[in-house]
Amino acid sequence: MTFSEFIATQQKRVDAALDRRVPAESVEPTTIHRAMRYSLFAGGKRMRPLLAIAAADAVSDAPAGIESAACSLELIHTYSLIHDDLPALDNDDLRRGRPTCHKVFGEAMAILAGDALLTLAFEVLAKLDCVDPERRSALVAELATASGTVGGMIGGQVCDIEGEGKFATAALLESIHRAKTGALLKASVRMGAIYGGADAAQLDAMTKFGEHVGLAFQIVDDVLDVEQSSEALGKTAGKDAKQQKITFPAVYGIERSREMAEQERIQAHLALQMFDDRAERLREIADYVVRRNA
Amino acid sequence: MTFSEFIATQQKRVDAALDRRVPAESVEPTTIHRAMRYSLFAGGKRMRPLLAIAAADAVSDAPAGIESAACSLELIHTYSLIHDDLPALDNDDLRRGRPTCHKVFGEAMAILAGDALLTLAFEVLAKLDCVDPERRSALVAELATASGTVGGMIGGQVCDIEGEGKFATAALLESIHRAKTGALLKASVRMGAIYGGADAAQLDAMTKFGEHVGLAFQIVDDVLDVEQSSEALGKTAGKDAKQQKITFPAVYGIERSREMAEQERIQAHLALQMFDDRAERLREIADYVVRRNA
Repeated sequence: MTFSEFIATQQKRVDAALDRRVPAESVEPTTIHRAMRYSLFAGGKRMRPLLAIAAADAVSDAPAGIESAACSLELIHTYSLIHDDLPALDNDDLRRGRPTCHKVFGEAMAILAGDALLTLAFEVLAKLDCVDPERRSALVAELATASGTVGGMIGGQVCDIEGEGKFATAALLESIHRAKTGALLKASVRMGAIYGGADAAQLDAMTKFGEHVGLAFQIVDDVLDVEQSSEALGKTAGKDAKQQKITFPAVYGIERSREMAEQERIQAHLALQMFDDRAERLREIADYVVRRNA
Repeated sequence: MTFSEFIATQQKRVDAALDRRVPAESVEPTTIHRAMRYSLFAGGKRMRPLLAIAAADAVSDAPAGIESAACSLELIHTYSLIHDDLPALDNDDLRRGRPTCHKVFGEAMAILAGDALLTLAFEVLAKLDCVDPERRSALVAELATASGTVGGMIGGQVCDIEGEGKFATAALLESIHRAKTGALLKASVRMGAIYGGADAAQLDAMTKFGEHVGLAFQIVDDVLDVEQSSEALGKTAGKDAKQQKITFPAVYGIERSREMAEQERIQAHLALQMFDDRAERLREIADYVVRRNA
């Protein structure tokens, strides 16, 4: 199977799991389920679930039910996009190539749809029936910590907002991104490894891999925001500069940022040295993250 | 110990647990921790944690660590108040006798503080060290379902918003309130019982008790919104009528609503018949819920 075939197959698998776990549009109250599904099934790349699945496969042999655990990451990611796009936050009209959730369903419903996706992520993990309760609890703890305020996604979002217009130092830049996008990407890899039953050494290696891939992802995201059109990205391009966000291109310039992403890609590969061919998909994901155009 | 002393003691215990689990105001990023604590420590009655603690005591002998599990309910309740008060939702300026979270910290921070409290609720449960992982998972599942869209708090909130100005039928009224406030109050009792190791018959009895107390609570809340001043309530009084909300007084009138609350109180007592004196605090809470003035 080629890498593109792998991606397409796993995306379908994740989408099917999401479809099973998110109430149908016909379930009352229908509005919120339509809003949740509108944002969830808007053609995301499913990067976080893909990382979790590939990490689980690397430590175990395609463990059953991993796609359910993995879809909790997409639920968290999608809630964060809906809330970030709200007028009170980034005030964005375009996401994944479509009008944002609040543009279609109104602000009240967008706030509640985000809350509901966040809540559902933990329900999905708590009701996983393919792993023992010890592991279920560990997965909930991992996801909650990565999504939280101390070194997690919400904390990063707060620093990002408060950093707007401030003098951008390298240290501030890295601390924002480690939390804002890095924590959840790292957790994706770790959750997959935990699900697959990784031992301490394997989990440690996966953690390092997750950190490097996470940083590479964010650097490339910042670069694409400068270089690409809104049409190509499916979201409003060039808004980092407009909002005076602290970004890698702003601190290092485009060329140096690209080099840094490449360095992170290499470090990500090195972190996987203890794994054999079973980690090949993870290596390919790291390559894809750095070389993508959108 | 009198009932007032019991309440005061347990409130202190819950507040201490919350204080341990919510990052200090000095922890970076400080703004969000200040916003979370501002809303959390504004003098709430801690009704949901009290129910959980009293239910746990009724089936077990004061199980250690129950206050940590119980405080997850207050985290969820407080997040829901912060988001409900936002301009896009109920647009309220006053809560627990103080300006609402977004009035003090701005809308962006209020949205993120709500998200953070919601996330932390699950982190607290997943990291409980006094119960086995099986029970930890059950508590996460219980809380997530009660807070969710299908028969849970968010679902009730959606119906409540969509019901504004609609013709208020008794069936619609009950379905809204069963979900909007009832689900979390019922879950409070159930989570306490699960924590205490209730058997199936005990859990069934507790579920019934929780349903009756939950309905009684909401009927009285609706009545107080009509009868009391904003000063007494610590939140804007009379806003249900102004927003054309579907309420018990609107459908049944004040007198009949009071009678209905009393009926629910009696049913709540009856549900506890299989328990001995150890359920006395639960009976007292049911009485308090119906007879309170704020």
